[in-house]
Amino acid sequence: MINIAIDAMGGDFGEKPIIDGVIQALQSEEFNAILVGNSEILKPLIPKELQKFITYEEANEVFSMEENATDVLKRKETSIYKAIELIKNQQAHAVVSAGHSGASMSLATLKIGRIEGVLRPAIATLMPNIKGKTLVLDVGANVDCKSEHLLQFALMGEAYAKEVMGISKPRVALLSNGEEECKGNELTKETHRLLKNMHNFIGNAEGRDIFNGNIDVLVCDGFSGNIILKSCEGVAGAIVKMLKIEIKKSFLSTLGALLMKKAFINLKKQIDWQEYGGAPLLGVDGCMIISHGKSDARAIKNAIFQAIKFSKSNINKVIENEIKQLNS
Amino acid sequence: MINIAIDAMGGDFGEKPIIDGVIQALQSEEFNAILVGNSEILKPLIPKELQKFITYEEANEVFSMEENATDVLKRKETSIYKAIELIKNQQAHAVVSAGHSGASMSLATLKIGRIEGVLRPAIATLMPNIKGKTLVLDVGANVDCKSEHLLQFALMGEAYAKEVMGISKPRVALLSNGEEECKGNELTKETHRLLKNMHNFIGNAEGRDIFNGNIDVLVCDGFSGNIILKSCEGVAGAIVKMLKIEIKKSFLSTLGALLMKKAFINLKKQIDWQEYGGAPLLGVDGCMIISHGKSDARAIKNAIFQAIKFSKSNINKVIENEIKQLNS
Repeated sequence: MINIAIDAMGGDFGEKPIIDGVIQALQSEEFNAILVGNSEILKPLIPKELQKFITYEEANEVFSMEENATDVLKRKETSIYKAIELIKNQQAHAVVSAGHSGASMSLATLKIGRIEGVLRPAIATLMPNIKGKTLVLDVGANVDCKSEHLLQFALMGEAYAKEVMGISKPRVALLSNGEEECKGNELTKETHRLLKNMHNFIGNAEGRDIFNGNIDVLVCDGFSGNIILKSCEGVAGAIVKMLKIEIKKSFLSTLGALLMKKAFINLKKQIDWQEYGGAPLLGVDGCMIISHGKSDARAIKNAIFQAIKFSKSNINKVIENEIKQLNS
Repeated sequence: MINIAIDAMGGDFGEKPIIDGVIQALQSEEFNAILVGNSEILKPLIPKELQKFITYEEANEVFSMEENATDVLKRKETSIYKAIELIKNQQAHAVVSAGHSGASMSLATLKIGRIEGVLRPAIATLMPNIKGKTLVLDVGANVDCKSEHLLQFALMGEAYAKEVMGISKPRVALLSNGEEECKGNELTKETHRLLKNMHNFIGNAEGRDIFNGNIDVLVCDGFSGNIILKSCEGVAGAIVKMLKIEIKKSFLSTLGALLMKKAFINLKKQIDWQEYGGAPLLGVDGCMIISHGKSDARAIKNAIFQAIKFSKSNINKVIENEIKQLNS
């Protein structure tokens, strides 16, 4: 059975939504949950019938969101540190954490280590498109990149799309300011040349292509990926706010919005990141799923499902082989 | 009276929407329109009572969207070339063009020239936020930037916000992947240090801050600005598409959407770029408004209003002084 270590204390809202997510996940999938945190607080939250799927790893400190990521290496009693140690000691197959993402990333890279040949691990996230989902990487692990890093991100993203998302021929594209080969900054132009030999590379893509369903994997540096992610969250939020203001302006609109309630709920579900689980850190020699600090139970449940799929797949072996082939 | 040269042939949809935009603008503002294009085609489109505000500058060629921007220097018979010559020869105060934006930019920079001290002109665009508009620059003129370029963009954006948008104390922010000073890539960290001395600089901002109304001017390199712009267009478009699909799924939703029609129209108006006119090319020694190739009459009308406001303002003098002060 798969063992998933869960940082039970790291999120913005404490242990409650995280434990609720674990409970929801256990109701539909079989796995062992290793809850990392203060067992005295955690145990009473677990229903009796699920106790048999749960073990506890004591950790009495939390690495807070305000701390400096690099300090986590000295904080050996924190829940995130202990969770990642479980992978290192081969007691867990995967870690899910909604804690400090920079700390999770640093720890995972340093304690679990990189897959042989990988220069830099990348955070990959799923974004909704009108037909399904687009994988975008990197979205924040590496703000300054070289073309050889982006090339590896492309290979890792392709592997994830194939092995975990089940897309047999993923369309891999490079983020640029225009579709033509000549468009881009120095970094993307150089990367384009490297990617041309890749079988599934379909060329440059613009930001709008994330959403129209024409690509499966979008490769970019972590700075660009991060600002896209946050801008898009911002637009969606602003549209909702503006529409709410308009709706309140008239009785007819308010009535109309009530009649449309189901349509709005379905739309929200489609564009809500909580439905997509967390973001895998690709390139480390294990499975680290980084969840949003504001994750609710549903987001944690989905992140656990993602960790299970990842752990059952062959992705890290595939990445290792792809990179070996690239370097030979 | 202000003379506005209008590239009447450059847009994706030919002369019709452009001339309609000129007519709409003339109905509410006094200015002279110099229509650059084939006068035999253009003249019949203008109502008799407006002819007195219009002169024609013959140009029989169009620089097409597929051509390479740098080739425009040799294409002296194109409408965009002739329009920009009118500024150079001081026959026009401003140019509005919905043609090839790269060509407009190159021509304006080379023929009109830069304001003294300006290293690189930048394209500034307005994006909607929940309280009004945010000016974002650069959005595509300079895909590879140094910190001294971004510093100048900040000064030019601040000047535009003050002189043309009428914001007395514009809040200027630097796009980064986090609000903390330590966040960013090499370029933004270095730029942050330079911007710290600027009176109206409020620090780093994330993509979402474009939309929440907390900043007036967002400074970024042209690559990042361009991908943000296109991603945001993409999200908005995808949300509309997804919602339409949901609405069609049930009779109640369809009825609700009908009742909400006015709310949707108002929302569309708020987020529609056609309402915002074009994007001024800041840093050239004149007024060049770059409009979207797909501009309709309303977008052209708004771009003309923008050109008039720009021409009546003192912005280029302010930019020149600011940069002189910076360099001394």
